[in-house]
Amino acid sequence: MKIEFKSIGTIHSHFKKKEGMPIQSIGAKGIKGFIRIKKNYIAGLKDLDGFSHIYLIYYFHKSNGFELHVTPFLDNKPHGVFATRVPKRPNSVGISVVKLLSIKKNILEIENVDIIDGTPLLDIKPYIPQFDIHSVDKNGWVGQKADNLNDILSDNRFE
Amino acid sequence: MKIEFKSIGTIHSHFKKKEGMPIQSIGAKGIKGFIRIKKNYIAGLKDLDGFSHIYLIYYFHKSNGFELHVTPFLDNKPHGVFATRVPKRPNSVGISVVKLLSIKKNILEIENVDIIDGTPLLDIKPYIPQFDIHSVDKNGWVGQKADNLNDILSDNRFE
Repeated sequence: MKIEFKSIGTIHSHFKKKEGMPIQSIGAKGIKGFIRIKKNYIAGLKDLDGFSHIYLIYYFHKSNGFELHVTPFLDNKPHGVFATRVPKRPNSVGISVVKLLSIKKNILEIENVDIIDGTPLLDIKPYIPQFDIHSVDKNGWVGQKADNLNDILSDNRFE
Repeated sequence: MKIEFKSIGTIHSHFKKKEGMPIQSIGAKGIKGFIRIKKNYIAGLKDLDGFSHIYLIYYFHKSNGFELHVTPFLDNKPHGVFATRVPKRPNSVGISVVKLLSIKKNILEIENVDIIDGTPLLDIKPYIPQFDIHSVDKNGWVGQKADNLNDILSDNRFE
């Protein structure tokens, strides 16, 4: 079964290449960017500005191919690709939660942006604490490794 | 730009139609299901069993078309489709956080399943509290409406 999606807009940031990027939105605190939504979808943004945080679902357009075992930025040992958040995946789909600062017509100003400039956007959903905050018993290989993400930047291993 | 994804497996549950389904995984507490991963992706599951919660990213295969203004199950007023989590969207991509109970070969036993039987799976990512828990200032039209999701079930308005 082939599943076809289309870009509903483009995510813009000052990150022009993967090297040196923050590896998650919480490692990108204060970094601003914007989204340009295609004009035919503007009506779909109604009331989105009531939410302070939104999910962006996007296409890792710079990633080609994938490996089933990968060594992520946070570790020096390989793990199954589905046990990581690396961009090279069987389906190159990414999710980030960003702060929504403003919406003016088809431009969304966003903050905590860990996304490369020019990334095709597939969907926006509101981040809703009652749905999206979960109490976790086990945090796998990540453990405490993600506690200080501001010190860790990406390299080009997944280009 | 056309973006093509493929199913990496299938999500199974006892929900055969949308009517009467829970509307989010937190409204599906204790409801079990399973995922059958395609055999060529089994190696990608290594170390996933260390995580108690996982994101499932999937294709709403029962949804055709979309409207830009929709009235979601939790409200009686229309909102922009991107300010809701309804399945009929410009790109019919869904995300759910479920509990991962076990992995045996290519079968993942999961809990808190709000997903219809036969849904094509696109990706699995670990749910990592340091990345995925955000402190929200504004909860838009949802407000407190999602506090008692066990009392609210879906109907077939998005078939």
